[in-house]
Amino acid sequence: MEFNKVIRGAKREVNDTEHVNAILDAGFLCHVAFTHEGQAMMIPTAYGRKEDAIYLHGSTKNFMLNHLINGQDACISVTHLDGLVLARSLFHTSVNYRSVVVFGKAVVLTDENDRMEGLKIITDHIIKGRWGEVPVGTEQELKATMIVKVTMERASAKIRNEGPMGDDEMDNEVWSGVIPLAMKAGVPVVDSKFTGNQPLTESVINFVTVHNT
Amino acid sequence: MEFNKVIRGAKREVNDTEHVNAILDAGFLCHVAFTHEGQAMMIPTAYGRKEDAIYLHGSTKNFMLNHLINGQDACISVTHLDGLVLARSLFHTSVNYRSVVVFGKAVVLTDENDRMEGLKIITDHIIKGRWGEVPVGTEQELKATMIVKVTMERASAKIRNEGPMGDDEMDNEVWSGVIPLAMKAGVPVVDSKFTGNQPLTESVINFVTVHNT
Repeated sequence: MEFNKVIRGAKREVNDTEHVNAILDAGFLCHVAFTHEGQAMMIPTAYGRKEDAIYLHGSTKNFMLNHLINGQDACISVTHLDGLVLARSLFHTSVNYRSVVVFGKAVVLTDENDRMEGLKIITDHIIKGRWGEVPVGTEQELKATMIVKVTMERASAKIRNEGPMGDDEMDNEVWSGVIPLAMKAGVPVVDSKFTGNQPLTESVINFVTVHNT
Repeated sequence: MEFNKVIRGAKREVNDTEHVNAILDAGFLCHVAFTHEGQAMMIPTAYGRKEDAIYLHGSTKNFMLNHLINGQDACISVTHLDGLVLARSLFHTSVNYRSVVVFGKAVVLTDENDRMEGLKIITDHIIKGRWGEVPVGTEQELKATMIVKVTMERASAKIRNEGPMGDDEMDNEVWSGVIPLAMKAGVPVVDSKFTGNQPLTESVINFVTVHNT
């Protein structure tokens, strides 16, 4: 993977594999940008990562996936909002965040083992351990599913994790600081069409625990 | 604003002004996609909305903003993740979410009143009430700031807000349902370079309250 200032003017670069992967591994929702007849378009979708590749999936008729595999470079972004930074002037309002933008080419996985591995990588990213608790899907459902592997060719990671900056010369005495923000899990709600009284599975308990610490 | 299937294959469309605006107004972080030499690129940034326009800002040298104002259609997406939907098969794993993708042309605001209004719209979106609690910024800082207005020409909104679907024929008895997810505010942390003992301002108290209910 090549680390360059893919986005000129970017600040706070932490362009190394470790940071890129850590940011990717902290989420499962990305935005994918692509071009259609010269126009930039974008779709949010789930993803998984293993080594230097990002895995996406969807219907074989999926508009975005079918554009990605036409040879263009996909642009995939993951952003975690960690806090709102309030300074003593509005100009220095900022956010704490971790974000990564990667570029790479997408290929469709056709080998059945590769396809199942891709699905497992995506599932593990969304909720570790759910794979194995329930079946993957029917043969027909899997046939209708396209799994795409995007090998990361270029990446740009940015992290801001600090208090207000640049407002040192202000002499007003208004509260300034950081309001932490995080995605938190609530109490799991059982499927209303479910008549049994099944206990939460291990993957669900783990997910809720991880997303509340 | 025109509502069309800008993204073919999209499901769960709720394409009307009310839904589009409600989704936009529930956040302040968007992703902006644009093209540079034919390549789709994307940057996360803060935004504000008023009527049928989205406001962005940044340095006058900002790479993304300078591309947006070259006549191309900007593509702006806002996505709120509301829950993880776990079915009795992995194929029917889903997420509850609210997302909007809008397209429109960006123009630079030059009139000083328009510029200040744009900054206020963005600030109000990030944290209502902070405008007025602290100064906007110095003349020099404002001179170095570009404020861009993107009039929404096309929009596509999608909402999913339900339990697992499509797994009715499964007969396994494993827990299925929804794990709610929400962006929550933590306890505000005062700026470490701040020597006083100022109380939290009204805007900060309100923000924390709104983001914990």
